[in-house]
Amino acid sequence: MRLADRLGNLGTETAFAVSLRATEWQAQGNRVYPFHLGDINLPTPANVVAAMDRAIADGRTGYCPAAGIPQLREVLAEDVGRRRGLSLGPENVIVQPGGKPVITKFIQSIMDPGDEVLYPNPGYPIYESQIEYFGGVARPYRYLPTGTGFAIDVEQMRAMVGPRTRAIVYNDLQNPNGAESSDEERRAIADLASEHDLWVLSDEAYFEMRYSGSSTSIASLPGMQERTVILYTFSKKFAMTGWRLGAAVAPTAVAEVISKLNTNDESCTTHFVQHGGVEAITGDPSGPAAILETLRRRRDETVDALAGVPGIEAYRPEAGFYVFPDVTAAMQAKGIPDVGEFAEQALRATGVSFCTRRHFGRPQPDETRDYIRLAFSGISEDDIREGLGRFAEWVGAS
Amino acid sequence: MRLADRLGNLGTETAFAVSLRATEWQAQGNRVYPFHLGDINLPTPANVVAAMDRAIADGRTGYCPAAGIPQLREVLAEDVGRRRGLSLGPENVIVQPGGKPVITKFIQSIMDPGDEVLYPNPGYPIYESQIEYFGGVARPYRYLPTGTGFAIDVEQMRAMVGPRTRAIVYNDLQNPNGAESSDEERRAIADLASEHDLWVLSDEAYFEMRYSGSSTSIASLPGMQERTVILYTFSKKFAMTGWRLGAAVAPTAVAEVISKLNTNDESCTTHFVQHGGVEAITGDPSGPAAILETLRRRRDETVDALAGVPGIEAYRPEAGFYVFPDVTAAMQAKGIPDVGEFAEQALRATGVSFCTRRHFGRPQPDETRDYIRLAFSGISEDDIREGLGRFAEWVGAS
Repeated sequence: MRLADRLGNLGTETAFAVSLRATEWQAQGNRVYPFHLGDINLPTPANVVAAMDRAIADGRTGYCPAAGIPQLREVLAEDVGRRRGLSLGPENVIVQPGGKPVITKFIQSIMDPGDEVLYPNPGYPIYESQIEYFGGVARPYRYLPTGTGFAIDVEQMRAMVGPRTRAIVYNDLQNPNGAESSDEERRAIADLASEHDLWVLSDEAYFEMRYSGSSTSIASLPGMQERTVILYTFSKKFAMTGWRLGAAVAPTAVAEVISKLNTNDESCTTHFVQHGGVEAITGDPSGPAAILETLRRRRDETVDALAGVPGIEAYRPEAGFYVFPDVTAAMQAKGIPDVGEFAEQALRATGVSFCTRRHFGRPQPDETRDYIRLAFSGISEDDIREGLGRFAEWVGAS
Repeated sequence: MRLADRLGNLGTETAFAVSLRATEWQAQGNRVYPFHLGDINLPTPANVVAAMDRAIADGRTGYCPAAGIPQLREVLAEDVGRRRGLSLGPENVIVQPGGKPVITKFIQSIMDPGDEVLYPNPGYPIYESQIEYFGGVARPYRYLPTGTGFAIDVEQMRAMVGPRTRAIVYNDLQNPNGAESSDEERRAIADLASEHDLWVLSDEAYFEMRYSGSSTSIASLPGMQERTVILYTFSKKFAMTGWRLGAAVAPTAVAEVISKLNTNDESCTTHFVQHGGVEAITGDPSGPAAILETLRRRRDETVDALAGVPGIEAYRPEAGFYVFPDVTAAMQAKGIPDVGEFAEQALRATGVSFCTRRHFGRPQPDETRDYIRLAFSGISEDDIREGLGRFAEWVGAS
């Protein structure tokens, strides 16, 4: 039986193969230190669970509107708007089963076959997958090391914009490299979008997951709100990855289209989960504060453990779950030319499991450095210390 | 800002407009009898809720595999297989956030632009929407009244199959008309699919929602399992519409594609909800039995109330939530030529709110009769009796 031709353009998250390999290795009786997971191994705050249970007891087990329950759309409009300096109404908020659905629904809403979309590489692999799956031309823009982190190569991005360019996917507080735009960089990207009348998907999954300073949304720059769709998610701040709750925050015309896609694709997001979301936004903030504090300690533990390791160069990210070290010198010292092989050998020698740059898009032709991604959201401080201690020892033993 | 051209081909469920109109009418202080809802106003069985709560307490709030938790895939493979006489493994079951996502994922998996797909009309409007949205040619097949219900016009269906035909969407125990295929009809459709190497989407949402007899899946006919994707849902049997839990049951090659679409579209279905699903399938069957018994009484109340009404011809469906009366004579007697206007006048005169044939696809050119759909899943027996009493009086008062 023949399948559809379009499936040839469908990508995936190859990082799942890393999970599988770690599980296999563990099943063979080995200790594994899971730095590959973008998940959080902390419980959802109890008040959120209690609110969901109350909703079930109140009979909220039937369908709800495709765009989400009115209460959740209202509290999100207020909360997302206030934290970004935007004036939003419930009509701008379309509830989703997670943040991820916003990617495909954005692409479907604004890009036609043959149109070009700029996206970050390394970056979350689903951007590229969805652009290509819906017949677009995915144009990767790059990051350059700055000595204290990474910056978008805005000149390269500018040179890439042409008559068929429709949109820029922008992920400030980036996965996997932890980069945050300077005000100047963000403004330059906004100017580019305005000049060329481009849409922007602003993936703000980590907007509130920061350890110092404050986040700025590109949607808050002049002229940007009308062309920006914000990907909002409950997953990180409230340790709700498995709840599947998020939202597209969008100009009304796009919001209406995305709501219609909801009707076609899944009817609505799980009804009672949305009542948990209302409590998450409006209830006791001590739960998410404790989650963030735990993650801060894990980040410091991770970066500190890598600080003394020869051949590993890591930056301390101000936001997100990820450390993205340059391991080029360590690979040379170990005589391992391939970063995938480096990861495999590290797993077998130390139990430390991680993704590499390769899991975040096809490498660009001029790349000369090798990177790995260590996620500290799914592993305890003790295990971070122990695992990276073994890793450091292995790297040092050339 | 320009939106994508493909959105011009995206349909929707116009039945939501009926809900909105009923809500408006009620807000003006009027009594409304809701026969328009395909939802269930009964609680989900308590054991299912308890199992979900245990899963949350056990920490099942993080991501799970894109295809679903292994336990749920296993128990569904066994349960769906046993009830249909199919041999299924967990690899054939891809968990979804509801039954509806199976429609778009089936179409995306097997149809290319320009391909033709046959679908039932009247029928669930998302079939047509998704075929056209993904660039296919939607070819509606019709039902003919038999005197005791409706039958598919298999000769018309056969004449429609051509070199570009890729699939048949088949919804036995039909929404909106309640039709069930005879063995002969089902076999004729299976033969057609086999002869022309067509895929079949078998929407089995109401497979277990029957009041007598037993259901047969087209997938169980010779040569059909390899070409059939079953749409399975927890929504009806367990009163879980708002939970958003269902599955695609498919040959391995399609199952793998649908799992990859899950990774792209929503990561996974809500994790702890799936543990509720395991309990629903394996736990105490008295909850769903009570739901079905309540629905049977409502069905009988609905059909009995319509039996004496002049100009209304209704069949007693053996399955599903819907009565689909021919109201042509009643409309003539009332001097109302348009079925939409008939519904509006009925609402204003009696508070009885319902969908019409028009909400289930563009009418076919040769249609001469008018139908309405009365859903009895979201309204109590008392309200059925009272509402349809008023309706009968209004219809009779010509």
